[in-house]
Amino acid sequence: MPRPDYMLLTRKVEFSASHVCSNPAWSPAENLRVYGNNSNPNGHGHNYVLEVTLEGVPDPVTGMVFDLRELKEILNQEVVDPMDHRFLNREVPPFDRVIPTTENIAAEIWKRLEGRVVRTNARLRNVRLYETPDLYVDYGG
Amino acid sequence: MPRPDYMLLTRKVEFSASHVCSNPAWSPAENLRVYGNNSNPNGHGHNYVLEVTLEGVPDPVTGMVFDLRELKEILNQEVVDPMDHRFLNREVPPFDRVIPTTENIAAEIWKRLEGRVVRTNARLRNVRLYETPDLYVDYGG
Amino acid sequence: MPRPDYMLLTRKVEFSASHVCSNPAWSPAENLRVYGNNSNPNGHGHNYVLEVTLEGVPDPVTGMVFDLRELKEILNQEVVDPMDHRFLNREVPPFDRVIPTTENIAAEIWKRLEGRVVRTNARLRNVRLYETPDLYVDYGG
Amino acid sequence: MPRPDYMLLTRKVEFSASHVCSNPAWSPAENLRVYGNNSNPNGHGHNYVLEVTLEGVPDPVTGMVFDLRELKEILNQEVVDPMDHRFLNREVPPFDRVIPTTENIAAEIWKRLEGRVVRTNARLRNVRLYETPDLYVDYGG
Amino acid sequence: MPRPDYMLLTRKVEFSASHVCSNPAWSPAENLRVYGNNSNPNGHGHNYVLEVTLEGVPDPVTGMVFDLRELKEILNQEVVDPMDHRFLNREVPPFDRVIPTTENIAAEIWKRLEGRVVRTNARLRNVRLYETPDLYVDYGG
Amino acid sequence: MPRPDYMLLTRKVEFSASHVCSNPAWSPAENLRVYGNNSNPNGHGHNYVLEVTLEGVPDPVTGMVFDLRELKEILNQEVVDPMDHRFLNREVPPFDRVIPTTENIAAEIWKRLEGRVVRTNARLRNVRLYETPDLYVDYGG
Repeated sequence: MPRPDYMLLTRKVEFSASHVCSNPAWSPAENLRVYGNNSNPNGHGHNYVLEVTLEGVPDPVTGMVFDLRELKEILNQEVVDPMDHRFLNREVPPFDRVIPTTENIAAEIWKRLEGRVVRTNARLRNVRLYETPDLYVDYGG
Repeated sequence: MPRPDYMLLTRKVEFSASHVCSNPAWSPAENLRVYGNNSNPNGHGHNYVLEVTLEGVPDPVTGMVFDLRELKEILNQEVVDPMDHRFLNREVPPFDRVIPTTENIAAEIWKRLEGRVVRTNARLRNVRLYETPDLYVDYGG
Repeated sequence: MPRPDYMLLTRKVEFSASHVCSNPAWSPAENLRVYGNNSNPNGHGHNYVLEVTLEGVPDPVTGMVFDLRELKEILNQEVVDPMDHRFLNREVPPFDRVIPTTENIAAEIWKRLEGRVVRTNARLRNVRLYETPDLYVDYGG
Repeated sequence: MPRPDYMLLTRKVEFSASHVCSNPAWSPAENLRVYGNNSNPNGHGHNYVLEVTLEGVPDPVTGMVFDLRELKEILNQEVVDPMDHRFLNREVPPFDRVIPTTENIAAEIWKRLEGRVVRTNARLRNVRLYETPDLYVDYGG
Repeated sequence: MPRPDYMLLTRKVEFSASHVCSNPAWSPAENLRVYGNNSNPNGHGHNYVLEVTLEGVPDPVTGMVFDLRELKEILNQEVVDPMDHRFLNREVPPFDRVIPTTENIAAEIWKRLEGRVVRTNARLRNVRLYETPDLYVDYGG
Repeated sequence: MPRPDYMLLTRKVEFSASHVCSNPAWSPAENLRVYGNNSNPNGHGHNYVLEVTLEGVPDPVTGMVFDLRELKEILNQEVVDPMDHRFLNREVPPFDRVIPTTENIAAEIWKRLEGRVVRTNARLRNVRLYETPDLYVDYGG
């Protein structure tokens, strides 16, 4: 059986944010039915944990899939700096019009990162976002 | 490269149970050889950690793959309520006749859940069961 | 050396909430200087982890310091139900007038619990509150 | 302010066991009322996590409070070997007559260890026993 | 939808080692540019966490994908015994000539294990290596 | 019973380093007997986890025991910057002449911090240092 010809490299970062899940076209009762206490209009918050996975072939000279410091800087620029200590619905587009469910936040993080981490030998493979230690979403995986 | 067209949603629950791994057709010595101290007929126990993963497309209106409260209720009905604080071999069929290895418990949980979580936009994708923090099985992955 | 004559019993619960740390008597610049990005007026959030420790002598008949289900119910009534999925400053007194630093939230939880867990053989000993996995406060310890 | 003149050294080990909490003098209904589902006579189990803390003055020559390999061997002899993969009530005295609540197991572990770890410069200081990640007892602390 | 016809079995082990990432053909400044503080020639260390995943069909009689004690022994022989408490570059070939990036260590562990865990019903599927809790590589996944 | 009049504030940081435990006055065999594989002269490494605890009275105006950003900066200056990615024995005095057991590293960290965190309302209370997740030392506790 041949050996695998690529590797996955995963880096974890955290950010603390608040959000509300509610549809402005619906009544409070309807939002409560669909989103439960996530629909509280004052917002509530989480320590989000993000694991970003790149797929790639290690550079034959350096033995690395991606420069780790560069990856950290990209994650800070695209995710941590704009989202940490923010109320997502009010301060981080597109969550002024896209409901910040864990699914939608993961998809937005994918959009922000996919073009930033493309290299000859590497590309974005998965975005995993934990809302709590007991609940997470994978996009790409 | 096109964006992925589905997401994975994972929810974690825990239950404490005891079990014995031994084949009634074998001698105690043979069971000890195959299952080690798992063959102790008095049973021993674990804090099992279960991660259930659904694959699906987020509903375009709600932005969710699955209703989280409904998922929790299904996991309680099918797994936590019948298995928590139980001696699996004596109290939870089919483990009166199926040896409750981690592999077999994971397969049983798959059977209990697959029909309960099918939706137009979602289905069961993986059952991960930790027997200890250092040992786990994935079924479906 | 004599054996210790009491035990500590600790139970962990979690709640997700948002908060703002800012002093209404100060300018935004002054609040930013003191509280950093915690002063963002829109709020941000955390998955707070609370460990409540009771000190007591195990009941000689039951072998327990405290009824575990009763303890869980008290924690739900006094902390989780009123604080989970809430914006503390706007929805949970006294945080409309007391700045919800981790220190002040821990002290408030102490006040809410001390009278509820007093028994002939037990009393509140410590409240530990994690704001993030890397930062926590102990009150009583 | 003077510097502290002693240190604490803590080592963690794990064991998987099953137990029942019930008083033979009581009816099943009474045991259910006091111990809840812990009273299931078939037993149930946990991955117990034990943290043993010694208090001592580091040896001025070696810079160590206690020989770590010797400590591990003592923990194996006194706790892990006799309790791991066992049904405590049936196989590990005194739990044939002492109800194995977390409190009582911690006290038994203290008794087993206190004489084994006494040195000129060290002694047992605390036994912490986790029944689950959300519930633990300290004895000595 | 048919049920999956195989399972994944994962076992975790840990080892503490030190390493240096630097290319002998390069100047210290060039190595610093590429590897950052990983290029410190004195070495530095990590508690590496290794998760080895086998893919297989549970044996219909035992209900197990692989003998767990045998797997642990193989991991000890091939990874933990030769690498734990070692300076990889100086003591563990091929890291005298292959730069021990996380990627290269994972690939070396794959090579050491792939032939040892092949059975009629099982084979190596993935090697996951954590350098720190925030950074890991998957090979095979 | 009066309420406690102080709080503890704990902040966690990590650093990766390598070390050797051996006494230059002894033979390799004697060092092996005392320190086991920690005496390997090439060194080996760990992801050290440090929890620093301050004792203090929250400032009545800010509601904080200590400025969190200032604390983080002090920990970086005194511990993380000088020790991270270093071979302690060769690069971080006094470990050129003091054997870097976990006990001795914890005491050195205490010395570096005690004068830096003294305030009217706060002082250093405890230094906890994990060498691995299963072994840690407390100094001051």
